[in-house]
Amino acid sequence: MRNLTLLTDLYQLTMGYGFYRHDKHEEEVVFDLFFRKNALITYSIFAGLEQAMDYLLNWRFDDEDIAYLRSLNLFGEDFLEYLKNMKFTGDVYAVKEGTPVFPGEPILTVKAPLIQAQFAETALLNILNHQTLIATKSSKICRATAGKGMVMEFGLRRAQGPDAGINGARAAIIGGCSSTSNVIAGQMFDVPVAGTMAHSWVMDYPTEYEAFRAYADAYPDNCLLLVDTYDTLRSGVPNAIKVFKELRAAGHKPKGIRLDSGDLAYLSKKARKMMDEAGFPEAIICVSGDLDERSINSLIQQGAKIDSWGVGTKLITSEDLPALGGVYKLSAVIEKDGTVTPKIKLSDNTAKITNPAFKKLYRLYDKENGMAIADLITLRDETVNDDEPLTLFHPVETWKQHEVENFRAEELQQTIVENGKLVYEFPTLKEIREYSKGELAKFWEEYLRLDVPQLYKVDLSDKLHRLKIGMIDSIRKHSKKEK
Amino acid sequence: MRNLTLLTDLYQLTMGYGFYRHDKHEEEVVFDLFFRKNALITYSIFAGLEQAMDYLLNWRFDDEDIAYLRSLNLFGEDFLEYLKNMKFTGDVYAVKEGTPVFPGEPILTVKAPLIQAQFAETALLNILNHQTLIATKSSKICRATAGKGMVMEFGLRRAQGPDAGINGARAAIIGGCSSTSNVIAGQMFDVPVAGTMAHSWVMDYPTEYEAFRAYADAYPDNCLLLVDTYDTLRSGVPNAIKVFKELRAAGHKPKGIRLDSGDLAYLSKKARKMMDEAGFPEAIICVSGDLDERSINSLIQQGAKIDSWGVGTKLITSEDLPALGGVYKLSAVIEKDGTVTPKIKLSDNTAKITNPAFKKLYRLYDKENGMAIADLITLRDETVNDDEPLTLFHPVETWKQHEVENFRAEELQQTIVENGKLVYEFPTLKEIREYSKGELAKFWEEYLRLDVPQLYKVDLSDKLHRLKIGMIDSIRKHSKKEK
Repeated sequence: MRNLTLLTDLYQLTMGYGFYRHDKHEEEVVFDLFFRKNALITYSIFAGLEQAMDYLLNWRFDDEDIAYLRSLNLFGEDFLEYLKNMKFTGDVYAVKEGTPVFPGEPILTVKAPLIQAQFAETALLNILNHQTLIATKSSKICRATAGKGMVMEFGLRRAQGPDAGINGARAAIIGGCSSTSNVIAGQMFDVPVAGTMAHSWVMDYPTEYEAFRAYADAYPDNCLLLVDTYDTLRSGVPNAIKVFKELRAAGHKPKGIRLDSGDLAYLSKKARKMMDEAGFPEAIICVSGDLDERSINSLIQQGAKIDSWGVGTKLITSEDLPALGGVYKLSAVIEKDGTVTPKIKLSDNTAKITNPAFKKLYRLYDKENGMAIADLITLRDETVNDDEPLTLFHPVETWKQHEVENFRAEELQQTIVENGKLVYEFPTLKEIREYSKGELAKFWEEYLRLDVPQLYKVDLSDKLHRLKIGMIDSIRKHSKKEK
Repeated sequence: MRNLTLLTDLYQLTMGYGFYRHDKHEEEVVFDLFFRKNALITYSIFAGLEQAMDYLLNWRFDDEDIAYLRSLNLFGEDFLEYLKNMKFTGDVYAVKEGTPVFPGEPILTVKAPLIQAQFAETALLNILNHQTLIATKSSKICRATAGKGMVMEFGLRRAQGPDAGINGARAAIIGGCSSTSNVIAGQMFDVPVAGTMAHSWVMDYPTEYEAFRAYADAYPDNCLLLVDTYDTLRSGVPNAIKVFKELRAAGHKPKGIRLDSGDLAYLSKKARKMMDEAGFPEAIICVSGDLDERSINSLIQQGAKIDSWGVGTKLITSEDLPALGGVYKLSAVIEKDGTVTPKIKLSDNTAKITNPAFKKLYRLYDKENGMAIADLITLRDETVNDDEPLTLFHPVETWKQHEVENFRAEELQQTIVENGKLVYEFPTLKEIREYSKGELAKFWEEYLRLDVPQLYKVDLSDKLHRLKIGMIDSIRKHSKKEK
């Protein structure tokens, strides 16, 4: 495997050298990774943790890397020597993959020596932004089927490079897809792979019928035929039915057809009728071709007869929004004596002001029905007493407060890495998908729907709220004095 | 390096097995890779050839791959044994990386045994679609600067995974970027890397001034300061000027400032004035923050004082259109006696009808001024006589013909691989960028402009045109007879 250690922005290293020269590099700090908004839907599905930890725990500056950095004429020799031996020695806390997450909450927290925590930023964001994006898009698409048929991920050829195809398929499964066409993803993550034939198969035989027969001969029990190469209803479906009859006569059960172009609503209804009348009501109709949540929803509303959905480009690239704005911000410095000094980033845009301090993240559930009520961010050393009513504070619009009672609080972040050692067992991809489905079911549909959703609250505890307000005031006063 | 051989769609293998069973797998075929439309701009910049050939020439089904394929219960043992020894033994012809290309023309042509040519499809499309997309987007963005300042690629953290960041940076350079923040891309492709500090650097010091001083201390001759952490004009720029004066007093030349938020037109003009008045007219202003061709164009029109542009998310994901619809279609079967049987894919959508046969691609230039006139697709064995006037035929709207004279014809496809051996020397990334710039300069601005461009012609020779029309007629007649 190629050593990806230098998968970073140059400024992580120029800053690292600056920290090193001022002997700040081993100062203990806390960084939070979070999303500023839910860009695709009212929630995001967190994904990519396993690959992100794989990067973090395996970085190594080998001789070639050091030689390259030396060639840039930016770093001192002592610093390059230091990098040679730099491993990640800190702690990582994160929510589980597959968890629905909301804006502003710390999804992943790194506590580590400054130089390490800073160096980790780019790769963590790259990996987690990407997989969370695709898992969220997949969730949106899979929810659009309203339970009518399975979704297959078909996007490899239009993915933004090999990794985007492989880890994109992984994320698509987390978001709810049942299979992928991507063979290496199936191999790596132990998930079902799907696919049968392309138009080129059909074109390579003198006639469509001969092409179908040849396929049936190779896969008599898995015979799914692509029927739109020449003329779907006048040639493709009749030829498929002819081959299905031959298969049945030989004791096999034909699988069905795939439509990849044309008016899928009309064609699927016509094809369904033709196959039913020919005695093949169990043959399935699988569709593909530029599908996404909108076209799936529209096909379902038109009464299309579709049993499975192959979704490609628009899923694997998240076509309508191909990047999540995940960020990674310094939230505290921990002094040698253990004192935590909270840090905050101000901005004229109040939504961009960060939540300071080393924190915890809770999800509050209604004790009676188990449904999620709100998420709560607290200071690290706070404990939430769920026997008493609790006041939650809006993180930006500070006049908004909200009281909850009769709730159960669950901490969302798990300890993943401790002192540079992995202490968490990664679930399988299938387990993550099931977990994600279960977690999503704990949210009222009002919070998830696409049109006019209710806003799910991510609030601050009284203590964190007061700390934040106090820090903002003090920086504003300080900056006035400076002028 | 991980063995990526199984970076493919399952159907390539199910079809492969079908071909194998019918002893068609070693039939010689020709596939063309092309784009159906220029989605981003009037041309696309071809990129990714080196990585695509790296895949093609290094595939190997190792024991683990074979064991995985066996576990799918789809393939016979003899076929798995065959795969174990399957290497690419065919030919590849392609245009050079960096070439501006147009819809419908064969950019890359594979001539190989059917099973190999088919198997190569997914990875070729994945790699070439991605890099061509980003190179094209980069070209669009770089052209928007109208020569005012360099463009730096800053997108790694929002790229769709590690590869998308690395090969995306490569493609961005091909399209015209001068540097990247991505260290591993700089290392792999020998291109300049750029970057200085993040907001976290500034936040980690008690005051902005101390943060700037610390940075100046580490990089006295490369001191570019990020001035928008607290308040750009009241704190950031004044603190930067203070540090610049100290640097100058110590005999160094300060580099400049970076603006990452706010009204970049207003802030850059104000900051320019402040730095000029303080005696630093040579200090540069670099901007970043959600830039793309539109915002760059708008900033230039507003008279913003900007010397370099850091472009991130919208470049590295091609945010407005994150996938190119490159396709790969069978165009001929070559019989054992050498006879070429052309193949065509019909569609109700005439633009989706493929150009049949084993072909050549020419670019015609005006003999007098060297500017491009049109591209011409011919049969493989045709030669273009550029001493005589030539009639070009529109590939879809068959009544459109066009006569050219006084031209020079240049073949665009190079032989890249012959009998499975690389026979082409890949240029360096810098060479590709220069080549691309030179090729683009051979097109009149009328063909390139974003608003109401002239359509650049990609036409067929008389022979190819007649072959295509004849095949369409004959298939239509044949399919009527079948009913």
